[in-house]
Amino acid sequence: MKLAIVNGPNLNLLGQREQSVYGNRSMENYFEEIQGLFTAELLYFQSNVEGELINYLQGFSGDGVVLNAGGYTHTSVALRDCIAALSIPVIEVHISNVAARESFRHESLLTPVCRGLIMGFGFESYALALRFFEP
Amino acid sequence: MKLAIVNGPNLNLLGQREQSVYGNRSMENYFEEIQGLFTAELLYFQSNVEGELINYLQGFSGDGVVLNAGGYTHTSVALRDCIAALSIPVIEVHISNVAARESFRHESLLTPVCRGLIMGFGFESYALALRFFEP
Amino acid sequence: MKLAIVNGPNLNLLGQREQSVYGNRSMENYFEEIQGLFTAELLYFQSNVEGELINYLQGFSGDGVVLNAGGYTHTSVALRDCIAALSIPVIEVHISNVAARESFRHESLLTPVCRGLIMGFGFESYALALRFFEP
Amino acid sequence: MKLAIVNGPNLNLLGQREQSVYGNRSMENYFEEIQGLFTAELLYFQSNVEGELINYLQGFSGDGVVLNAGGYTHTSVALRDCIAALSIPVIEVHISNVAARESFRHESLLTPVCRGLIMGFGFESYALALRFFEP
Amino acid sequence: MKLAIVNGPNLNLLGQREQSVYGNRSMENYFEEIQGLFTAELLYFQSNVEGELINYLQGFSGDGVVLNAGGYTHTSVALRDCIAALSIPVIEVHISNVAARESFRHESLLTPVCRGLIMGFGFESYALALRFFEP
Amino acid sequence: MKLAIVNGPNLNLLGQREQSVYGNRSMENYFEEIQGLFTAELLYFQSNVEGELINYLQGFSGDGVVLNAGGYTHTSVALRDCIAALSIPVIEVHISNVAARESFRHESLLTPVCRGLIMGFGFESYALALRFFEP
Amino acid sequence: MKLAIVNGPNLNLLGQREQSVYGNRSMENYFEEIQGLFTAELLYFQSNVEGELINYLQGFSGDGVVLNAGGYTHTSVALRDCIAALSIPVIEVHISNVAARESFRHESLLTPVCRGLIMGFGFESYALALRFFEP
Amino acid sequence: MKLAIVNGPNLNLLGQREQSVYGNRSMENYFEEIQGLFTAELLYFQSNVEGELINYLQGFSGDGVVLNAGGYTHTSVALRDCIAALSIPVIEVHISNVAARESFRHESLLTPVCRGLIMGFGFESYALALRFFEP
Amino acid sequence: MKLAIVNGPNLNLLGQREQSVYGNRSMENYFEEIQGLFTAELLYFQSNVEGELINYLQGFSGDGVVLNAGGYTHTSVALRDCIAALSIPVIEVHISNVAARESFRHESLLTPVCRGLIMGFGFESYALALRFFEP
Amino acid sequence: MKLAIVNGPNLNLLGQREQSVYGNRSMENYFEEIQGLFTAELLYFQSNVEGELINYLQGFSGDGVVLNAGGYTHTSVALRDCIAALSIPVIEVHISNVAARESFRHESLLTPVCRGLIMGFGFESYALALRFFEP
Amino acid sequence: MKLAIVNGPNLNLLGQREQSVYGNRSMENYFEEIQGLFTAELLYFQSNVEGELINYLQGFSGDGVVLNAGGYTHTSVALRDCIAALSIPVIEVHISNVAARESFRHESLLTPVCRGLIMGFGFESYALALRFFEP
Amino acid sequence: MKLAIVNGPNLNLLGQREQSVYGNRSMENYFEEIQGLFTAELLYFQSNVEGELINYLQGFSGDGVVLNAGGYTHTSVALRDCIAALSIPVIEVHISNVAARESFRHESLLTPVCRGLIMGFGFESYALALRFFEP
Repeated sequence: MKLAIVNGPNLNLLGQREQSVYGNRSMENYFEEIQGLFTAELLYFQSNVEGELINYLQGFSGDGVVLNAGGYTHTSVALRDCIAALSIPVIEVHISNVAARESFRHESLLTPVCRGLIMGFGFESYALALRFFEP
Repeated sequence: MKLAIVNGPNLNLLGQREQSVYGNRSMENYFEEIQGLFTAELLYFQSNVEGELINYLQGFSGDGVVLNAGGYTHTSVALRDCIAALSIPVIEVHISNVAARESFRHESLLTPVCRGLIMGFGFESYALALRFFEP
Repeated sequence: MKLAIVNGPNLNLLGQREQSVYGNRSMENYFEEIQGLFTAELLYFQSNVEGELINYLQGFSGDGVVLNAGGYTHTSVALRDCIAALSIPVIEVHISNVAARESFRHESLLTPVCRGLIMGFGFESYALALRFFEP
Repeated sequence: MKLAIVNGPNLNLLGQREQSVYGNRSMENYFEEIQGLFTAELLYFQSNVEGELINYLQGFSGDGVVLNAGGYTHTSVALRDCIAALSIPVIEVHISNVAARESFRHESLLTPVCRGLIMGFGFESYALALRFFEP
Repeated sequence: MKLAIVNGPNLNLLGQREQSVYGNRSMENYFEEIQGLFTAELLYFQSNVEGELINYLQGFSGDGVVLNAGGYTHTSVALRDCIAALSIPVIEVHISNVAARESFRHESLLTPVCRGLIMGFGFESYALALRFFEP
Repeated sequence: MKLAIVNGPNLNLLGQREQSVYGNRSMENYFEEIQGLFTAELLYFQSNVEGELINYLQGFSGDGVVLNAGGYTHTSVALRDCIAALSIPVIEVHISNVAARESFRHESLLTPVCRGLIMGFGFESYALALRFFEP
Repeated sequence: MKLAIVNGPNLNLLGQREQSVYGNRSMENYFEEIQGLFTAELLYFQSNVEGELINYLQGFSGDGVVLNAGGYTHTSVALRDCIAALSIPVIEVHISNVAARESFRHESLLTPVCRGLIMGFGFESYALALRFFEP
Repeated sequence: MKLAIVNGPNLNLLGQREQSVYGNRSMENYFEEIQGLFTAELLYFQSNVEGELINYLQGFSGDGVVLNAGGYTHTSVALRDCIAALSIPVIEVHISNVAARESFRHESLLTPVCRGLIMGFGFESYALALRFFEP
Repeated sequence: MKLAIVNGPNLNLLGQREQSVYGNRSMENYFEEIQGLFTAELLYFQSNVEGELINYLQGFSGDGVVLNAGGYTHTSVALRDCIAALSIPVIEVHISNVAARESFRHESLLTPVCRGLIMGFGFESYALALRFFEP
Repeated sequence: MKLAIVNGPNLNLLGQREQSVYGNRSMENYFEEIQGLFTAELLYFQSNVEGELINYLQGFSGDGVVLNAGGYTHTSVALRDCIAALSIPVIEVHISNVAARESFRHESLLTPVCRGLIMGFGFESYALALRFFEP
Repeated sequence: MKLAIVNGPNLNLLGQREQSVYGNRSMENYFEEIQGLFTAELLYFQSNVEGELINYLQGFSGDGVVLNAGGYTHTSVALRDCIAALSIPVIEVHISNVAARESFRHESLLTPVCRGLIMGFGFESYALALRFFEP
Repeated sequence: MKLAIVNGPNLNLLGQREQSVYGNRSMENYFEEIQGLFTAELLYFQSNVEGELINYLQGFSGDGVVLNAGGYTHTSVALRDCIAALSIPVIEVHISNVAARESFRHESLLTPVCRGLIMGFGFESYALALRFFEP
């Protein structure tokens, strides 16, 4: 089984900035750790460019995607259309509980076309999403 | 560790009605199965009465709650206040992807005061939520 | 044929209070009268508790329901889900013409999942609804 | 007693088009049938023109009206004013359960000035409305 | 100078119905009276049909129009477009103070394309509007 | 008969500024002219201070008021309450057709408690309003 | 093949009024010209009356309709229902780019039930629509 | 004089949880204290169940009610209808200043049918409300 | 202790106008009466001018304010900012139950920055507010 | 004459995915076909990146553009500004009838600055748009 | 060159209250300092009364105005009309970043008629605005 | 001190297109001029791609940023998140007074996380922003 973790804008900064909110651990560091917990082949991709996220998802040939689209979650009809056209499951994840933040973060354009949503568990949101594919 | 699965209105009907949507498996049947997968003590409570759900949550002394509040998710300020007053983590779960259903189901009054949200994975939403407590 | 008339909150007060609006006839009195007009077996249930209405509807085994959910008409997603799960027809009735009252009474969460709606005819709304089952 | 059934735009097509939705029975055919069920004198009028419906209602001298205003239900302040000026009861009926259809059909400008509303029972909505006048 | 008073739906009922609100004087009676007060040639037209009002306005060759469009005031883009295309001044009048009535009467589609608006003075609204043309 | 013309903020600038819109005639000049057209005693008051307009209206002992409240038309609940408490008729006037201007000018807080509304006729709006008192 | 061009309210004025906006060409003149460009039989109908447009569309037996409903585009549920009941394709056209005009023109009740929409090309919008039927 | 203090959901937790917000005093403790301050007979009732609050209010025979409906304040049409049907005064109280909290707490369905509202004074809100009955 | 009662626009008319609503008692008369009930020094200020109310509040050196801002309650950000900058408690009062009046009176800009709110008790609202300072 | 067909995000997938909706024909295949139908030089550009679409449009030196911006249609102010700055006509096209799809697709930020709009005709929407340039 | 700094309600309190937010420097103190930095003649005016601000602006004969209207920024149509009638540039300034505060502060009625807006730089907002006149 | 001027989509066109609106001066030309006015090291970056603007801001190591995000101002949550994560001040600037343009330009997602906002002064908006860093 081949699964991709795809991160959107500003998630490359995790561990470097706003450490009081997100801790001092980087996504790369976390990614290495969880690779040891699953037998599936895990790929990782991050981009700040909306269209490059679409390019990656269109070109990905695997069994599932765990997607944290960051700020594009709330604004990208293009990303939504891309997900709707994929034939493999996409799981939306968020590190924080976005329902408890600013009101413009309360609506996700992506959730209705994703398989499911997991949010609020910090980095562990990614691992829980992977558990859907590999219980 | 002691954890409670708490189900709100109409979730006692799972497996009996609308089988084309929810399958023919009952919650009780599923509950038995997952008890074998976790070492924590698992309790189960269901009620159709909003206030009885509050009574149960107020009286529960354990380590965490997995809550599917059904229709009260979208209408109960009282349940929200109850969760906010609890000192243990409550995880909101839904069997279906409610963001893909009627618009009045798109806003949850509970999510902002819950630890996190997991939805869209069928019965497996409960197991993923329990994995937060027992990875 | 077995039919149930189910009344929600405050409808037990009919005939006792606000007589200038609702007259001095009680629901019980009216129920007795209409029993003589239909051959079907007629049952009557009233509760002020949202969840008890759901309990009753889940447990009712008959051919149809005439439901006046009172104030829960406009606020109860739980009751809506319950009706949607029933396999027998539920007819929504109101004594008054709620469209001519306060704006928060203009939307019913229940109507879309009911078989039909009859309102504005005083107590006779119930009899007209029963006429659907027994013309 | 003299009663009028008044139908608005496109209701002359019943039985001819969209038979999967409305069946293959025409309004004329149904009208003949129900004439045998009531002792009251029943008149029938249909028009696609908003103002002609007003003309008819203004000129009608009888004891009551059963009105299905079709698409004008949601847009005609003029028809509302006309009904409000009538001294006889007007009952609003709809063949389908319009609350379960598109959102622009959820608000009726006419209901607040009608005696009552009956909808969702197919052609039988008309007969139930007539039963108000002749139980 | 030739001026037209144009009345929309239900205004033919003035003096006949709802006398407690509108008095027992008919528009025809009032029209006769004001003809004696102005030297201009005064024409009168009333219709319940939206399109016939448009037909009349399109065909009218005079110096000004005093228009009470009744219920079409709030719903008719077609009438608005017709007025915008006229090269003579159209004055919108209302007998009652519509801002003090139901909220759907608070917005007029016609006012922005009319020369001015006069309302709330009973029948005298018409005379005041004519005074604009003939002070 | 004693009547007051009361003007709100910035209407003291008429004739001095924005002459392309309002012409080069001052309100004082116009006031003098119309004094010759009516037998009633005409008073004139202008203030840029909301509360001073209220003070004047509370203290005025006459038979009617013609009020152009300028920008306070759309924002002053206090002025509305003042008008509602007066026992003499207040007529709201505007020089321009405010319905054809910015959307925040489309709602008047004052109209529902005024006797009537006249707008869009330039300075002549005042004279037409006075004609209501002295036809 | 038989096709109808159907024009709604005020479109009979093209070429006569507001020439700075719409030019000095009449619809009749344009209609003659395009008849020479297509082999299909072309019919033309115009009315200012909403219900007559419905009457025409209900009675039309041909292969397609090009419809410019004018002001009824934004207000007529009745016309929408009529189009939805037709079994032949209806193409909505507009001479101007209505999305660039007043906000109440931005929503068309008709588009969702039409085959497609063509707007903004002046008179050529009609010819482009006919090209769909006869490329 | 007999007065009831009625508390809704989660108010049984006062003094036990969220002490930083509500202090460490229980409602029972406060209730004892104020009994010494008034000569009226004071009753106390609390429930987490919406319908039981209605049951209690329907059955209460006394001279007045001080009601803190907690989360039901903002969602319960049923409770509103119950209060409207009572013939004795009901005073709405809140411990905190709910207008300064989340926006969904800003509208109370109950206030329009209560005698008055007192909020923001901590426990003393109850005593001030009782002072209305016994100054 | 020194306390001020501050009244906004039109409250100087109490007892003079709209006696059917507000009774025939003046504020001055009431003020004299309550002076006898409290030991605190009581001051009274009223103005129709929004800025003068701000001037007074800025200059007041005492222990608390009871404020009925009348119509400015719903429109004055300036008054809100003034209250927020005061270091002494301000209690908002209203004579009537404004939640039961027009919808534009339902939101108070002032409540979130006041210590509490008391409304609906007629003149006694002031006395109850003073009881907060002197129980 | 030189014309460009510009396609936005996910339109590179046409013919590969969701064939039940869009058929199995690719855009490239269609583009080849229509090249034979027009004498103008036709260019084709597609990108999933919003900014690259802007780059292309800024750099294009030709006579007209046929633009299907896909998901960016509803979200891109940047693209709108780019089109507004172009001096050649841009025609907006859509393959499907977006007015009949989800509500967030009903508003196009681009239409007001485009020459016109053509939608709902499948691939033929492009050809109809080209016919505007080359009838 | 003569320039005026005009401050609205509560800005006379700067340096006296809420020092944790605004610091302990008074506006007068700051005004003295910046007088040394510019060659233009600088005037200063502050009032808590909306209409006095209008009076001052109407009477000011200089080359430009730097205006911080405080709470009137969001509510005063009258002030907006006043600015629109001035022939000299008015620059809107705010000490704080009002877009980061309560939502009712997010819309300024004044900005559209001002020359520009500068906000968020503390006292320095005034100096930056003056730099527009004297770079 | 090192400062960056960052320009978003379409701002590379300044001086080339829409000269009647923006003049014939290019940004590059202006940038050269202001370099002579400040001692700080000034960098310049422009991109039409949202993600590249984020890339640049993430990688910039300097003392402050002057940002004109063009159309992304109103739509980019991703850019907002990027700015919020920066530890140096970002000042939002706009050449035109966007509050006086289309309503979708009235809300900026970026302002709440920027240090301040300067707009409406043409090219000079940039220089005023730089003056914040170097007075």
